[in-house]
Amino acid sequence: MTHPSKRISGLLGGGSDGWGVFNRARRMIADGIDVTELTIGEHDIRTAAPILQDMHRAAMAGHTGYAAVPGTNALRDTVAARVAARTGVPTTRDNVMITPGGQSALFAAHAAACDPGDIALYLDPYYATYPGTLRGVSAEPVCIRTRADDAFQPRAADIAAKANGARSLLINSPNNPTGVVYSRTTLEGIAAVCRDHDLWLISDEVYDTQVWEGEHISPRTLPGMAERTLVVGSMSKSHAMTGSRCGWIVGPEAVIADLINLATHTTYGVPGFIQDAAVFALDQGEALEDEIAAPFRRRRALAQKVLAGQNAISLVPAQGAMYLMLDVRSTGLSGEAFADALLDAHHIAVMPGESFGTAAAGHLRVAMTIEDTAFEAALQTLVRFAEEKAGAQ
Amino acid sequence: MTHPSKRISGLLGGGSDGWGVFNRARRMIADGIDVTELTIGEHDIRTAAPILQDMHRAAMAGHTGYAAVPGTNALRDTVAARVAARTGVPTTRDNVMITPGGQSALFAAHAAACDPGDIALYLDPYYATYPGTLRGVSAEPVCIRTRADDAFQPRAADIAAKANGARSLLINSPNNPTGVVYSRTTLEGIAAVCRDHDLWLISDEVYDTQVWEGEHISPRTLPGMAERTLVVGSMSKSHAMTGSRCGWIVGPEAVIADLINLATHTTYGVPGFIQDAAVFALDQGEALEDEIAAPFRRRRALAQKVLAGQNAISLVPAQGAMYLMLDVRSTGLSGEAFADALLDAHHIAVMPGESFGTAAAGHLRVAMTIEDTAFEAALQTLVRFAEEKAGAQ
Repeated sequence: MTHPSKRISGLLGGGSDGWGVFNRARRMIADGIDVTELTIGEHDIRTAAPILQDMHRAAMAGHTGYAAVPGTNALRDTVAARVAARTGVPTTRDNVMITPGGQSALFAAHAAACDPGDIALYLDPYYATYPGTLRGVSAEPVCIRTRADDAFQPRAADIAAKANGARSLLINSPNNPTGVVYSRTTLEGIAAVCRDHDLWLISDEVYDTQVWEGEHISPRTLPGMAERTLVVGSMSKSHAMTGSRCGWIVGPEAVIADLINLATHTTYGVPGFIQDAAVFALDQGEALEDEIAAPFRRRRALAQKVLAGQNAISLVPAQGAMYLMLDVRSTGLSGEAFADALLDAHHIAVMPGESFGTAAAGHLRVAMTIEDTAFEAALQTLVRFAEEKAGAQ
Repeated sequence: MTHPSKRISGLLGGGSDGWGVFNRARRMIADGIDVTELTIGEHDIRTAAPILQDMHRAAMAGHTGYAAVPGTNALRDTVAARVAARTGVPTTRDNVMITPGGQSALFAAHAAACDPGDIALYLDPYYATYPGTLRGVSAEPVCIRTRADDAFQPRAADIAAKANGARSLLINSPNNPTGVVYSRTTLEGIAAVCRDHDLWLISDEVYDTQVWEGEHISPRTLPGMAERTLVVGSMSKSHAMTGSRCGWIVGPEAVIADLINLATHTTYGVPGFIQDAAVFALDQGEALEDEIAAPFRRRRALAQKVLAGQNAISLVPAQGAMYLMLDVRSTGLSGEAFADALLDAHHIAVMPGESFGTAAAGHLRVAMTIEDTAFEAALQTLVRFAEEKAGAQ
């Protein structure tokens, strides 16, 4: 075989990909072992039937040809109205491009912000695809560690220290993997760094309907930020439509126009019948979003109950998203060693904090994505296991 | 607004985008004028109802979560078996990655072949997105003109003359815009250049079920080529599923593995229910493909009849795909001037050859994508118009 580009052969950046425990759990399942998976950021429900029925109606009505590359006017208008209503920032269809999912939006946003070799900043701990996405656009990823002591709220000074010559900063609130929602103070600090260093802020807000405590603030609302912020949104988490691959970028009109040119050459648009279904789903309003979010809200409350009255594990403030970040450093084990041992001893799979960088070492990410009773039982087992390990120290 | 990357602000490369006549026709239609559009490469039928019903069945059965990023095993296996059966080249699922459409496959294939600044070769006349796709991966596009006198069959020597230091060559047979099918001699010459210069050959074969004359040969079948060829395929043209955005790349296992890593960071897979529908459609076999191709075969025969017994227009051998390339140089007009005048005089819209580069200047691309009677009448009007112009010379 002739050699592939360095861009793709080096995409993963070498080293562990962080999926060791996950993959081992999947192999155990394939071997017939009953494993409780608390690993994946995906609902334990399917896309609601009325949404799928609307999709089918659109397809049978003939919406099966090429859809407009920027997205249908109907979906662009619906997303724009929703963003305007939620944030107060004037937003029209010309500020919106529909993408085949949030990951595609993350990639396109970085392609828009960075030329090859440009520095693209991101925060540790991070969602698994972030560094590879930056390498995928041939940018130079530079990581900024947040601190467990700050509950992983990034410090503006830490970002500013690496911002010289950078072109973009990627943030995610509500945050995967930490479950933290960035405070207004945090976001104002980030915005100031972006303005001072002329950075694009790429704001991954795909969990914006899953807030348990405090308030989701889109940084696009902050002074001088609408002109330099690209917001990534998606139907995946808010409407349990992960498999439909439907997301968007919201940003300044001129860069959206450029992004449409990029989309013509990278994706050529999103299926029209899926976009129609997305309009239908969004038109259901907050009631449906709350219904989709409710199981995670419930399980978070269960977790708080289970974790009360023990000292082996401390819970990073679980303010949003479908994850809990558990600090197990009292056990003396790394997150990876703990997760490996837990999988062996109790057939419970969680993600080690080390899967998401270095800042969440000694932590575990627990996805609240299984049915309540099983979730509570697994968490109780996990707590007892941590207590044994901490006691054995 | 802070400035976007040069990658996206310069994506179109400046100059006319070749869509002037098309856009003017669309504006006329919006103003209520009855325009006959022979511009777009899209069927005048919709996706067949049984395919859409299978899609709905899959969705309602719960295939609405994240699908595996490389594609479902079922679709990868189906595509692999189809490619193996049609070409004789051993092909397994590990040689196949499913993509959200052929354009996405073209982009990914070039990302796999080229690092930023690498030279990527392509042929003139070309499908509209080709140069922008190469710029989109930050490659340096280098164009090689084919010749009207050769019926646009590329000459190996012309390619070799620009191949030093290049990483890839993009070809398309059956060809859009010319309707030419590359001969075995042409493809063997191209293969030799690729082997001699260690090039990736990116072979866009999305029209491989639309062959009216001669034989479609996939260059992956030629000696030493399976290891350096990335074949781009799609459900769009063969199964009238343009709006479903479902395609694939077939290539060496190792680069497919790298491409899967890229897909994790660019698209995160293709909707599972769409992939299930694609399996259903492919399982219908050649009967369905022939049915989808039949209207173009019929209209090509109509065109040959209309064009017989006149001398103003000569038809580039219409061997495949849904287009006719008409040589109108006898009129003394450029393709653009002819198309503009035809639109004004008779409200018939065709694409000037100049929309696809410089090699097809003085030509018109006619899409055979309207109902037979209207198609024949429009072509008769076009011929009379050419005769008037040629006679007035």
